[in-house]
Amino acid sequence: MASGGDDEQVRNKQVILKDFVSGFPKESDMYVSTNGTIKLKVPEGSNGVVVKNLYLSCDPYMRNLMKKPITENDDMESIDNLKPGLPIIGFGVAKVLDSGHPSFKKGDLVWGNTKWEEYSLITNSQFLFKIQHTNVPLSYYTGILGMPGLTAYVGFYEICSPKRGENVFISAASGAVGCYVVGSAGSKEKVDLLKNKFKFDEAFNYKEESDLDATLKRYFPEGIDIYFENVGGKMLDAVLLNMRAHGRIAGCGMISQYNLDKPEGVHNLMHLIYKRVRMEGFVVTDYFHLYPKFLEFILPHIAEGKIVYVEDIAEGLESGPSALIGLFSGLNVGKQVVLVARE
Amino acid sequence: MASGGDDEQVRNKQVILKDFVSGFPKESDMYVSTNGTIKLKVPEGSNGVVVKNLYLSCDPYMRNLMKKPITENDDMESIDNLKPGLPIIGFGVAKVLDSGHPSFKKGDLVWGNTKWEEYSLITNSQFLFKIQHTNVPLSYYTGILGMPGLTAYVGFYEICSPKRGENVFISAASGAVGCYVVGSAGSKEKVDLLKNKFKFDEAFNYKEESDLDATLKRYFPEGIDIYFENVGGKMLDAVLLNMRAHGRIAGCGMISQYNLDKPEGVHNLMHLIYKRVRMEGFVVTDYFHLYPKFLEFILPHIAEGKIVYVEDIAEGLESGPSALIGLFSGLNVGKQVVLVARE
Repeated sequence: MASGGDDEQVRNKQVILKDFVSGFPKESDMYVSTNGTIKLKVPEGSNGVVVKNLYLSCDPYMRNLMKKPITENDDMESIDNLKPGLPIIGFGVAKVLDSGHPSFKKGDLVWGNTKWEEYSLITNSQFLFKIQHTNVPLSYYTGILGMPGLTAYVGFYEICSPKRGENVFISAASGAVGCYVVGSAGSKEKVDLLKNKFKFDEAFNYKEESDLDATLKRYFPEGIDIYFENVGGKMLDAVLLNMRAHGRIAGCGMISQYNLDKPEGVHNLMHLIYKRVRMEGFVVTDYFHLYPKFLEFILPHIAEGKIVYVEDIAEGLESGPSALIGLFSGLNVGKQVVLVARE
Repeated sequence: MASGGDDEQVRNKQVILKDFVSGFPKESDMYVSTNGTIKLKVPEGSNGVVVKNLYLSCDPYMRNLMKKPITENDDMESIDNLKPGLPIIGFGVAKVLDSGHPSFKKGDLVWGNTKWEEYSLITNSQFLFKIQHTNVPLSYYTGILGMPGLTAYVGFYEICSPKRGENVFISAASGAVGCYVVGSAGSKEKVDLLKNKFKFDEAFNYKEESDLDATLKRYFPEGIDIYFENVGGKMLDAVLLNMRAHGRIAGCGMISQYNLDKPEGVHNLMHLIYKRVRMEGFVVTDYFHLYPKFLEFILPHIAEGKIVYVEDIAEGLESGPSALIGLFSGLNVGKQVVLVARE
């Protein structure tokens, strides 16, 4: 490892969690600090990695990590809760400046768990992956080629095992393949995007529907075979009424519930029994071993221009808090990314 | 087929559903009619079976079939809803008096779908099975050797795939094998039965617990791997808080909800995601092909006296309404059966 001039501390701007969040998160729950400094060199004997952060990913699950853990059981097992006074933790794309880890070397581009700051010392590289394919925009590794892409792949192919001709419903919609696919979203602009750009068979604005049960019956007269659950609450209740026998629900997230002190009650669970439905929660970190298989699947589609992908990029670490908060009122159109630095 | 003297009509006492039921069912929602008559002979050309009913089974799912269907989707697919003015439909044990069906002949003992009356003409024999083993009490075919026994077997072995050493919780408890098993029930008598007679590792009276979450944490400090769901509502909410990573929930029924106009809300479904839990509803009628395999498994255990089984037998068709209603206040201790006639 190099030594010498790297030993000096440099400024490290950070986005810090001010306090645990309850209710709807506000920009003021976070603040940007310019007090931090960091050595751009891993400590002697550490197998950590020092990176320069390039892109940070805004993802709904992050809201859950901002609340005060109620019980030990309330933690997600593989991802740490955030702590007041410390920077936000999330997925991102970064460049390695120094490494004590055999899998990474100076100059490597990586994606995975990092922090909301200019530079990070990553000591747990369980969720850090070297980027092998750079003929796509690097920011894609916060979305379609990163955790959210793998999540969609796992939820759809591993959890739900779709069969040709089945009817698929995706709330807070992303993309899918080969079946009749309906998506829901929260604005006319997004619904247009789903229908015209992403080529969903149908899409609707859930905010304009007063009776979600009737809405789903309109789009799925035969019932829903596969539901990709991103929303929870009232949407899940309406979906349960419309599931078809032997349907599958991939439980990926419940964004409608994250800002509530007490989650809404779901009333129609008996339909899991009537319709013999399998509802399975999953956390993508259990499936990172499938990442090479996923890349093999998705990269040719991107190369052939067959994938439509939309990003919403906020410029500068300072824009992080508003970009993250915007997710929960649906301000983003497409994958919300924060650009920290160009390579 | 025999003909001649069988042609005359005989009296056929029946338990009739008076009207669709809402809220808690009452004995007066049914009545016993002695007006019915029946020919003890199948109609010419029919592949039906005429049986003399011996034992009738009281099962919680029957409550669901007594309510007015709200939408087509509200029906269970494989079992007909009950209709006012017609006899109650359920599982039972019977003796064949006449048969137009190649699988059944006069004198056969059968179990399966029949009606709450002295004699029945069964025209749909999809769920009618010839009893091959008669060295056990015939009433067992309403319980441990019938639909409820197969339900427990399928829910446990097919849906939950138990592994040695796992922690199992059974609400409205029945029996299980090889793991640490805790049951809940609604009286001291039943809890004693679970612990002392059925040899559960632990059991508790849920009516005496003010904080089910704390109760479950006490019995499952490491969390629950397998939950056999018979109850729903608050119990399910508490279980969700206590599931262990990669746990399985077999959704068999939700007896706490059947008498409510609107089912209670379940609030903790996010824990399906946090803990990667698979919750799968099933209906035993989908699994009758496993019945021979189940018998092969269970009969030797019964022969060796290894199975503890408790029945609560009400005498006479007239006692049917009170026996059935008693299920919902937990009056029965063990499997509730109605004895219509000795063979």
